[in-house]
Amino acid sequence: MSKKKVVVALGKDALGSTILKQKDAVKNTAKALANLVEADYQLTITHSNGHQVSMIHKAMTELRRIYIDYTPAPMCVCSAMSQGYVGYDIQNSLKSELLMRGISKPVSTILTQVTVDPYDEAFYEPKKAIGRYMSKEDADIEVNKGNYVIKQEEGYRRIVAAPKPIDIVEIESIRTLADADQVVIACGGGGIPVIEQQHILKGASAVIEKDSIAGKLAADLKTDELLILTDVDYVCLNYGKENEEPIKNMTVAEAKKYIEEGQFGETDMLPKIMAAISYLEAVPTGKAIITSLNKTRDMINEKVGTVINA
Amino acid sequence: MSKKKVVVALGKDALGSTILKQKDAVKNTAKALANLVEADYQLTITHSNGHQVSMIHKAMTELRRIYIDYTPAPMCVCSAMSQGYVGYDIQNSLKSELLMRGISKPVSTILTQVTVDPYDEAFYEPKKAIGRYMSKEDADIEVNKGNYVIKQEEGYRRIVAAPKPIDIVEIESIRTLADADQVVIACGGGGIPVIEQQHILKGASAVIEKDSIAGKLAADLKTDELLILTDVDYVCLNYGKENEEPIKNMTVAEAKKYIEEGQFGETDMLPKIMAAISYLEAVPTGKAIITSLNKTRDMINEKVGTVINA
Repeated sequence: MSKKKVVVALGKDALGSTILKQKDAVKNTAKALANLVEADYQLTITHSNGHQVSMIHKAMTELRRIYIDYTPAPMCVCSAMSQGYVGYDIQNSLKSELLMRGISKPVSTILTQVTVDPYDEAFYEPKKAIGRYMSKEDADIEVNKGNYVIKQEEGYRRIVAAPKPIDIVEIESIRTLADADQVVIACGGGGIPVIEQQHILKGASAVIEKDSIAGKLAADLKTDELLILTDVDYVCLNYGKENEEPIKNMTVAEAKKYIEEGQFGETDMLPKIMAAISYLEAVPTGKAIITSLNKTRDMINEKVGTVINA
Repeated sequence: MSKKKVVVALGKDALGSTILKQKDAVKNTAKALANLVEADYQLTITHSNGHQVSMIHKAMTELRRIYIDYTPAPMCVCSAMSQGYVGYDIQNSLKSELLMRGISKPVSTILTQVTVDPYDEAFYEPKKAIGRYMSKEDADIEVNKGNYVIKQEEGYRRIVAAPKPIDIVEIESIRTLADADQVVIACGGGGIPVIEQQHILKGASAVIEKDSIAGKLAADLKTDELLILTDVDYVCLNYGKENEEPIKNMTVAEAKKYIEEGQFGETDMLPKIMAAISYLEAVPTGKAIITSLNKTRDMINEKVGTVINA
């Protein structure tokens, strides 16, 4: 088989929600990824960071309460820390898994910043809940600082904008490693969002969706495939209903029709389909596949997974 | 001037001690580094992380006190987070500084693991104090968990081993970017120490000295120079005494003689000299320079700095 370049997007199931759970989950994820390396794929891996950045944001906030000499860590710093944390766990587990299989291949993480547009409409209507639950009093303090909060069942939480990615700042470094046939982990948690202001890259109080950046990364690298690994074998029509039907193949045009019909869940499947479409519109010869994290072997043998073509 | 490959080691002065101070300090550091890029040096940058990993370790410990569903973050995870945090700040500020000077050059951080020997004598006598000050009760809890503590003026602190670096796990990725003439930040905080046990890379409760890894990195990359940026213009004989005398040039043999005389402070200058020696023994054609962070322009013009040759 000829070497295939692929961007792999990992969701929260691939990572777990706490330090111990992540350690276990990532070991399993490493096996799924190693199957791809064994089948001669060149991998550029991106991942979500919801649980991780929330944990770090909580920790840095608590630190500030106890030690007043510490200033609170801005979201961009928490995001950078989460890239360090998750990237280390993935590269450590994958390197170990490859060594056990007798494969000596470089695996590394590139810390990644992604520019966003300060006029992105997402900034006018922040939607993404982050960090700890707060009391009404703490929520009021956040609002007074100019932050947005939302009331949820368990309490108040900060919400931040999820703008669209414009440019991956470190794309040349990622490309250099991918072209050298190495495994690269990049754009973790969607990348650290930055706004370019007269040559200064200013950290933004925002998060970028993992699927959105995966589509952008695959488009920029012009990979042969975009592989979105999740917790279902197939994208389905009428998901969860009696007439549920797995989709084996669809075109971009069909995907757009299904979106119009409201077939895909707004916070889970829709962003994945949108990422596939944006990648295929940039790379019409490409192939986007959505399937289960635990089915990479079957996916390689074309036995499972929803395949989307231009 | 022909392109020179150099490893640059940054100490705590280059980074500051809190989130706000780091932001300012790194802006200044970025100017010093940009001078080198402008003078056609290819930079591989490494840095300390004492303040940063302490802050993160404190924060993760406080989180554990408040939310019992979180397990404490092991040192290797705190170290990975600190690489994310410091790496982001350096690459962000340096990229911005280069853009302002009209230089479009890729700058990125590679998360780095470094193997250490589980039988390194440092593990039998941990010396490096980390993290928050503790009460006697909390210190006893640490001791019962099998950790080491030390009593200092302000309270008890955990101490961990500082073993010698054996192998830089991600060296091929670092080399690929350096060979592509990019700016690379790597081995932050000495690297995340790992022990190889039957192909598994197991995070170790230890820290690696920044100067020690800088020497190893320069040796592995066979760079033309090792540049250790600190807070003095020259290494001195009889430092702080009336007959203090700056050293402009010395050989490895002279350096060894001065070490025997006890000329260099054990925790500040000695590790730098040792790093220079280990680099020059591996790369006898190389040149190690120790000087001030704020004097990189003068250093380029050979007007300042202690130069050590084989």
